Amino acid sequence: MPDLRGPDRQPAFLGIPTYIHSPLALSQEELAEMQADVAVIGAPVDMGVVNRPGARFGPRAIRQAGYAGSPNDTFYHMEYELYPTQEIRVVDFGDAVCPPSSLELSHEAVRLKTMQALQTGAIPLVLGGDHSITLPAATAVAQHHGYGRVGMIHFDAHADTGESGYGGVLIAHGSPMRRLLESGAIPGPNFIQIGLRGYWPDRPLFDWMREQGMRWHLMAEIVERGFEAVLRGCHRRGARRPRGHISVSGHRCS
Amino acid sequence: MPDLRGPDRQPAFLGIPTYIHSPLALSQEELAEMQADVAVIGAPVDMGVVNRPGARFGPRAIRQAGYAGSPNDTFYHMEYELYPTQEIRVVDFGDAVCPPSSLELSHEAVRLKTMQALQTGAIPLVLGGDHSITLPAATAVAQHHGYGRVGMIHFDAHADTGESGYGGVLIAHGSPMRRLLESGAIPGPNFIQIGLRGYWPDRPLFDWMREQGMRWHLMAEIVERGFEAVLRGCHRRGARRPRGHISVSGHRCS
Amino acid sequence: MPDLRGPDRQPAFLGIPTYIHSPLALSQEELAEMQADVAVIGAPVDMGVVNRPGARFGPRAIRQAGYAGSPNDTFYHMEYELYPTQEIRVVDFGDAVCPPSSLELSHEAVRLKTMQALQTGAIPLVLGGDHSITLPAATAVAQHHGYGRVGMIHFDAHADTGESGYGGVLIAHGSPMRRLLESGAIPGPNFIQIGLRGYWPDRPLFDWMREQGMRWHLMAEIVERGFEAVLRGCHRRGARRPRGHISVSGHRCS
Amino acid sequence: MPDLRGPDRQPAFLGIPTYIHSPLALSQEELAEMQADVAVIGAPVDMGVVNRPGARFGPRAIRQAGYAGSPNDTFYHMEYELYPTQEIRVVDFGDAVCPPSSLELSHEAVRLKTMQALQTGAIPLVLGGDHSITLPAATAVAQHHGYGRVGMIHFDAHADTGESGYGGVLIAHGSPMRRLLESGAIPGPNFIQIGLRGYWPDRPLFDWMREQGMRWHLMAEIVERGFEAVLRGCHRRGARRPRGHISVSGHRCS
Amino acid sequence: MPDLRGPDRQPAFLGIPTYIHSPLALSQEELAEMQADVAVIGAPVDMGVVNRPGARFGPRAIRQAGYAGSPNDTFYHMEYELYPTQEIRVVDFGDAVCPPSSLELSHEAVRLKTMQALQTGAIPLVLGGDHSITLPAATAVAQHHGYGRVGMIHFDAHADTGESGYGGVLIAHGSPMRRLLESGAIPGPNFIQIGLRGYWPDRPLFDWMREQGMRWHLMAEIVERGFEAVLRGCHRRGARRPRGHISVSGHRCS
Amino acid sequence: MPDLRGPDRQPAFLGIPTYIHSPLALSQEELAEMQADVAVIGAPVDMGVVNRPGARFGPRAIRQAGYAGSPNDTFYHMEYELYPTQEIRVVDFGDAVCPPSSLELSHEAVRLKTMQALQTGAIPLVLGGDHSITLPAATAVAQHHGYGRVGMIHFDAHADTGESGYGGVLIAHGSPMRRLLESGAIPGPNFIQIGLRGYWPDRPLFDWMREQGMRWHLMAEIVERGFEAVLRGCHRRGARRPRGHISVSGHRCS
Repeated sequence: MPDLRGPDRQPAFLGIPTYIHSPLALSQEELAEMQADVAVIGAPVDMGVVNRPGARFGPRAIRQAGYAGSPNDTFYHMEYELYPTQEIRVVDFGDAVCPPSSLELSHEAVRLKTMQALQTGAIPLVLGGDHSITLPAATAVAQHHGYGRVGMIHFDAHADTGESGYGGVLIAHGSPMRRLLESGAIPGPNFIQIGLRGYWPDRPLFDWMREQGMRWHLMAEIVERGFEAVLRGCHRRGARRPRGHISVSGHRCS
Repeated sequence: MPDLRGPDRQPAFLGIPTYIHSPLALSQEELAEMQADVAVIGAPVDMGVVNRPGARFGPRAIRQAGYAGSPNDTFYHMEYELYPTQEIRVVDFGDAVCPPSSLELSHEAVRLKTMQALQTGAIPLVLGGDHSITLPAATAVAQHHGYGRVGMIHFDAHADTGESGYGGVLIAHGSPMRRLLESGAIPGPNFIQIGLRGYWPDRPLFDWMREQGMRWHLMAEIVERGFEAVLRGCHRRGARRPRGHISVSGHRCS
Repeated sequence: MPDLRGPDRQPAFLGIPTYIHSPLALSQEELAEMQADVAVIGAPVDMGVVNRPGARFGPRAIRQAGYAGSPNDTFYHMEYELYPTQEIRVVDFGDAVCPPSSLELSHEAVRLKTMQALQTGAIPLVLGGDHSITLPAATAVAQHHGYGRVGMIHFDAHADTGESGYGGVLIAHGSPMRRLLESGAIPGPNFIQIGLRGYWPDRPLFDWMREQGMRWHLMAEIVERGFEAVLRGCHRRGARRPRGHISVSGHRCS
Repeated sequence: MPDLRGPDRQPAFLGIPTYIHSPLALSQEELAEMQADVAVIGAPVDMGVVNRPGARFGPRAIRQAGYAGSPNDTFYHMEYELYPTQEIRVVDFGDAVCPPSSLELSHEAVRLKTMQALQTGAIPLVLGGDHSITLPAATAVAQHHGYGRVGMIHFDAHADTGESGYGGVLIAHGSPMRRLLESGAIPGPNFIQIGLRGYWPDRPLFDWMREQGMRWHLMAEIVERGFEAVLRGCHRRGARRPRGHISVSGHRCS
Repeated sequence: MPDLRGPDRQPAFLGIPTYIHSPLALSQEELAEMQADVAVIGAPVDMGVVNRPGARFGPRAIRQAGYAGSPNDTFYHMEYELYPTQEIRVVDFGDAVCPPSSLELSHEAVRLKTMQALQTGAIPLVLGGDHSITLPAATAVAQHHGYGRVGMIHFDAHADTGESGYGGVLIAHGSPMRRLLESGAIPGPNFIQIGLRGYWPDRPLFDWMREQGMRWHLMAEIVERGFEAVLRGCHRRGARRPRGHISVSGHRCS
Repeated sequence: MPDLRGPDRQPAFLGIPTYIHSPLALSQEELAEMQADVAVIGAPVDMGVVNRPGARFGPRAIRQAGYAGSPNDTFYHMEYELYPTQEIRVVDFGDAVCPPSSLELSHEAVRLKTMQALQTGAIPLVLGGDHSITLPAATAVAQHHGYGRVGMIHFDAHADTGESGYGGVLIAHGSPMRRLLESGAIPGPNFIQIGLRGYWPDRPLFDWMREQGMRWHLMAEIVERGFEAVLRGCHRRGARRPRGHISVSGHRCS
């Protein structure tokens, strides 16, 4: 599949948008041929939210949000003094085909698409979408690398470990971490949650999380000790658990 | 249940909002005691849409949109020279409790709430929400008055007679009329659709609708003949079918 | 008066909104019966502003802004490890009935409503509305607890001690603190103002404030010394003045 | 006072905005010297509204809304084939100095400014602002031309003949026509109201209006007979009343 | 170049957007191979406007605005009872590569891209962008079919026949029709303009247009005689001029 | 030229807006007579941007954004305890007359207007507009004070030292500093850039800047060392270069 934009310099608002002007893979075969290091996957899903639908437009909006033009090979990180897109081959793998009125089918589509990316050796970078998509995306990672051999660093205001959502629904945006823990995909001790604040989880749920061996850092701790100190601690613990992968999942609380 | 606003004149933006400042019934018992002619029901559901989520906020927005103050007994129709709220007792029956991540459970809540209103003798006025809610609301009407004894006058750009939605979903916003027809709640000849336009239904679906005995008026006909002439024709046909009720359901195409 | 929402878990966007899903008291009698610790009062007033009308919609907007669902008894403060709404009984006392074209009548309505709450033993929590409403609300507090026995901790960019507003108007949003001081409701030494910045008050007004014994902390001091240090100093001074109440009034500068 | 824009062609978004790029008169003397046919006066007032504050920004917004550039002497009416600004000398007379927290003082400022324009022989064109400003503006016209010698053609959805507004306020946006009639400035038979629709006035108020000799045309009549036919009828009646002036006042219903 | 979306039904908001989900041609060769009947070209240009920049985002916005899903072969015209995309092969030819700070270079890019489409036998459908792009697009059509052998039906409020824009600029959005006439690409008698209204052109410019043999229909005529009657007249005149092509260019007045 | 607002206190939203209610100079002669210390010049230009047109409305928006009323002589800086507008005479010199479709002519208009201000002895304060306007504004300063005798302190995310923009355009918003350096107006060592961050300049451009003797401070340095420390260093270096002026130019990255 050729590049959609061509080699000449073009402003970002012009032409067909892909993630940071990356080439587009229309199939798993193409993705494999392109030897992607990172496969960007859109998960246009928002049926999992309670209050703020609209994240179904997230993947498309993210693809258009940047204002650096193409080609992307001169994107420079001036502090680290390197060119990220020269170090890492990023391919836009398009969107999982999510039927907008079925959260179950949408999750299955996200899981399959993520699995396809993993099978080519690429690291999937999943653009949401509401936070429920962490369930199928991380499930695919666990299926690929082995249940129990995956860790989760989770940046969020909420722990998303709810037993169920309104109406007893099991797969909404407040419970993906619980489902991952229950299925064995990611055991409790493999979770680190960073940034918890506000009115939820409440006491019994924190107790449950503690029993599962989950660990977390309240936002209050970050304010007091600084983000860097907290992250350094996380890094040390991660280093003692060398096998398996770390899936970083950070979202606003929609 | 007392009125939430009291007898004094108050501007619309002030106080706790109910539908045109109507009294609020918190239960079926209260609704029955209040001898409502019309029971207003919110159906805060938007999982049935494809493109434009957000109608879950519809019932609340409608309750706040008016700018005529309370009490509502001086609302006058200056052309007909009457006071509608003096002729008809309107009660706000609150919202159906719709879990935001389950279209099935939301539909069931809408159906039950509509049925509760019908059982008190009130005419339900259901505020959406996306168009899929016509399925549970009209089902309740048919369960109350008898399958096949209900008619539907449907104002819409689309016929909403799709066999299924994306992913084969059966209860999304493009198919409620089909489900009502298939279940026997509303037979094809009892449908009149007004205002169809645009790119859908396409030919085979119009053919199917014709086979079912459904009737419709394209927007093009309204532009040419005038809205009044079209409506008068509908009225005449309705008059030949005296048994049963007419449920008027008009929505924008979200 | 029963709860408007019922005991079942419901998302925030659903149903008739009250302040954090609190029960609603329609009269002073109901408020007294409900033994409220805190009575939330809406003051839908914005005639006192110069530049940004619209705060009349504030109480309604605040009632709908939260996204934690009902019931509110599981709202948890994860840092303090307690459930605020289990410690404190909060009741929504509705809005003061403020005629939108009269600031005088609106203020009187706010004063009366605040007094009604105080008489039941509840602490009034007044939701604005523009900053002029501090005049009637704090006047009610002083009438209840005794003139001169009330203090004011005032978080704001402006001191709101203006002699008068445009056209010599005495009760607009730039002068409530002056009126409270002049009436004897709150003597100058009982004021602490925190966060002053910008272009006003100017020198003569600061001089007048100093003569009255008022104290304040510029935002520049907060930036330099930290918010906690400034607050600790305020607390120490407050402790030396044990009689009387402290009314905390913090607003954006609209 | 020189023109603020100079003789060269300039786009509308550029420079200091006046009403259709008209010259600005800073005082009554300047207005008189400029021999204005029309004096444009801003009335930045919105304390008279119930539901939608913000019209205080109206005069400024109107001054900036056009997109035809300066100078304005080539503005052409292609259907009438004439240059309106060559026929009529338009001068921007600035804003009445309306204190934002006093409707009374604001009205007085509008009345005085309108009177100043009339005294120079100019026709005042008052840009609102909420509809309450018709009271001071039309009062000035009546003071200038004689009480009872002025007529009002009033384009509006509402009659604005209310006895009083919320809280008994007499000068809010629902009652200017009543005040004008009561003061004798404009007798009932000199009113023609065009476009009434909706829920107000109600029956007793229409009865009162009929007793005063007021006349009106419902929007329903316009829809049926056409706007032109209705206007032609108004014109004939106006022709039988040659003395006095006609003040045209048309507003959206804010 | 394969289709970007695949054969399965997908909602419009999902995936990489092209014009009504058409296949994308990345080069003139691809466009020729695909035997397009219509080549859709984006012209992301807005340097030609006076007042409302932003149309550079137009092509991208149009590609995303539809809400009918893919594939597009079931888009039905229910009044004409046909499937437009089955009759006409539409291909998205991407955007002309327009440098955002040069109107001259942007025009040249639009002209070249339009010419490339014409050379494959496709009819170019150019999505703007501001109205200045009619100059390069129609110039390409004239270069392809022969100067003087092309006609223009122009739907607009303005005639766009200005001698020059602010600062004497020749190629801004108020003068493309003049440039086309002056270059001989489209002679005056080959123009029909429909919908002129407002304050421009003024008298001398209408005189000049008349001298050139241009014809136009004011919006006032359309209101009086009806759109259909006006169009029928245009059609008859066009029929007398069988050679050459008709380029339809309709825009809002930005 | 008299003050547009008069001596009485007026709210900011009222009347004809100038920059912080300053008097307006319609010509260089008026500016000279008014002995302005600072001449505020609007540069309503946005053709130089890549992604975000709209800054042509900047000067007008800035003139209206403040909410402190007139007159401006009581604007107080409560931390420094002085009245800035009593120390410095500020005059609004209006906008440069920038033709909206020509960046070249717009730049020339900005240069001339800036030069006019300088010739009266006023310091020009130029309100943009996109960042390309730094080229004509700083060129005028250099023409007035002498090429090479001017320094630039440049607050920005980007260095704006690009060889050219899209299409090889030389005067867009990414290259004004390069043009100033190439013309000799401001030599490389006279530049200090503060706040660089993100993806551009990349390595070769930083190398070029270093060769020219330019200096800069990354945002990362400011985060680490603090803004005050960085500024103090800049100040020391500036002090060693006493001849010439310092033009401070700070913008968001549009």
